[in-house]
Amino acid sequence: MLDSNANIEATQQVRDLGEQGLLQRLQRFCPEDIVGDDGALLSVSEAHLLVVTSDTLVDGVHFSLGMASPGIHTTSAYDAGWRAAAANLSDLAAMGAAPLGITVGLGLPGDLPVACVEELYQGMASCLKPFNTPIVGGDVCRSPVISLNITALGQVLPHQAIRRSTAQPGDRILITGVHGASRAGLELLLHPEQGQSLQQCDRDYLVCAHQRPTPRLDVIPLLHTVALETHPWTGMDSSDGLADAVLQICRASHVGAEIDLRQIPQIAGTADWISASQALEWALYGGEDFELVLCLPPAIAQALLELIPGGAIVGTITVEPIVVLQDSAGRLPNQVLSLDRGFQHFE
Amino acid sequence: MLDSNANIEATQQVRDLGEQGLLQRLQRFCPEDIVGDDGALLSVSEAHLLVVTSDTLVDGVHFSLGMASPGIHTTSAYDAGWRAAAANLSDLAAMGAAPLGITVGLGLPGDLPVACVEELYQGMASCLKPFNTPIVGGDVCRSPVISLNITALGQVLPHQAIRRSTAQPGDRILITGVHGASRAGLELLLHPEQGQSLQQCDRDYLVCAHQRPTPRLDVIPLLHTVALETHPWTGMDSSDGLADAVLQICRASHVGAEIDLRQIPQIAGTADWISASQALEWALYGGEDFELVLCLPPAIAQALLELIPGGAIVGTITVEPIVVLQDSAGRLPNQVLSLDRGFQHFE
Repeated sequence: MLDSNANIEATQQVRDLGEQGLLQRLQRFCPEDIVGDDGALLSVSEAHLLVVTSDTLVDGVHFSLGMASPGIHTTSAYDAGWRAAAANLSDLAAMGAAPLGITVGLGLPGDLPVACVEELYQGMASCLKPFNTPIVGGDVCRSPVISLNITALGQVLPHQAIRRSTAQPGDRILITGVHGASRAGLELLLHPEQGQSLQQCDRDYLVCAHQRPTPRLDVIPLLHTVALETHPWTGMDSSDGLADAVLQICRASHVGAEIDLRQIPQIAGTADWISASQALEWALYGGEDFELVLCLPPAIAQALLELIPGGAIVGTITVEPIVVLQDSAGRLPNQVLSLDRGFQHFE
Repeated sequence: MLDSNANIEATQQVRDLGEQGLLQRLQRFCPEDIVGDDGALLSVSEAHLLVVTSDTLVDGVHFSLGMASPGIHTTSAYDAGWRAAAANLSDLAAMGAAPLGITVGLGLPGDLPVACVEELYQGMASCLKPFNTPIVGGDVCRSPVISLNITALGQVLPHQAIRRSTAQPGDRILITGVHGASRAGLELLLHPEQGQSLQQCDRDYLVCAHQRPTPRLDVIPLLHTVALETHPWTGMDSSDGLADAVLQICRASHVGAEIDLRQIPQIAGTADWISASQALEWALYGGEDFELVLCLPPAIAQALLELIPGGAIVGTITVEPIVVLQDSAGRLPNQVLSLDRGFQHFE
């Protein structure tokens, strides 16, 4: 009898529960005192600004639960949930904010197993847990494709908000970790026959970088300990790639940048698998590393770097509004980056 | 030449602009100082609570832009945008909150005309304008179906928050306006041959009730003028129907209700088109009227009613946890409402 019940449970579909039933099932992922009304109530601490950021992910485009794209299964529901939550917390980190909560809007086909929706929520909840961030609401609705919208809310003191538009010539460009690892992990998931030369631990690290990225909220309190309140805090996250982040900051700040390619940290253990230029391509354009790219006066950048083991200072903000990639070892000619190389998701 | 340019403009598709290009095009609907970073920055007034509410709408399910459901064209992009914004502002009103802003997450097929996206935004902006509510951010992404997620943010003083769980026996149930008009308008859109007996102004009113609902944010300051701070404020909006609202409140408050059918305002001018029982069915279960259903002590309900011309007191909260529909004229037998009659959107 138990087995038979378990089977019924395992094959239960979204339409069997209906909207209300599904919402009730999902409420265990939310704090009890917050849900149940037309909206959630949250406290924002005195003097803080509210930070809001929103992301929509669609099955077959941003993740592959196999419904929209049978044959490609690079992402479990758990991983899709994790990555969606991580991407939004990363946006809060990019603003210098402490998270308050997220809302979740789900579009679901009626024949989707309920277990899959719960797994999605479990992935979000697991990513949020270390940051004490609750799921404070949301809704579910019927849709021919699975879609997931997350809106993340955070708070920041006005002078501690990180903006894109305040980079100043002379600022050092600090990145908080390795770039390209997520892209490499995706390659291994799409083509498991690749990277036979990799050690298992390196392979696991790359796949994990893609499936379970960690938002760099840990950097914000470190920044508070070293940064001057009188100097603007500039930066964003590298969700669309390191090159894109530098370009976006330069465009918003009306400045340029020189990047020293030799200073960009290499992904460990991949030298036998991919060429140095492939690694650099992924580091610059791969995206989804969810590190922070910060522009800070030299002394502050150096002080922060000492608190962030995997970080690096990769360049300098310049007056001339172009982004130049330089190989200080002189192996490669200078390149000038253009915004056109950023992702164009509709193409 | 101008005509030819206008044609190019009119046939431009989402994929021609790309994600960044489309976002730039849409930024004119947002305040300049708010957008451009990884998140938007908003001030919440001191001592206020933040209210967050989120809604996802999908083409072919919640509206019909004709892409997902060719043949059914009840909703223009402008109207879909308007209704989506109205539904979210209505949730804020239902919490007693003043709006701060909304974020918009769009999923779009690459071949969707850009003009259609702009029309959607225009509809949202027009609905938001009377309430001085900005679009503070969001994102666009590729999706096989058009989806629209709105997260609305508002603020409320803690003792002025309207909850579902605080109705008390003896409270009067006040509705802020006519119910069933939106459902009647939908019927006229789906079956234009119907309602030949209606005067044009009545027909326009019903269609407008469906396509351009008005969130009842105007009620909140009126409530402040008559309500006691010592008595909890109870209610929600009637987006899923009047019956559903009463049932949800009763369930959350562990109380029951008696509704006097005779007190439910009739839709003007429809007597020759639909029967009284059809009108009642639509009033109770039609949904999308976006009125408020409030439970208040008798004197306060009466005082508020005098400030809301189209409103009505339709019943009383009771101790026994069932909802009874009574015809005080004695024409109909009592009915007991069950939650099962609420919408089950996945069926």
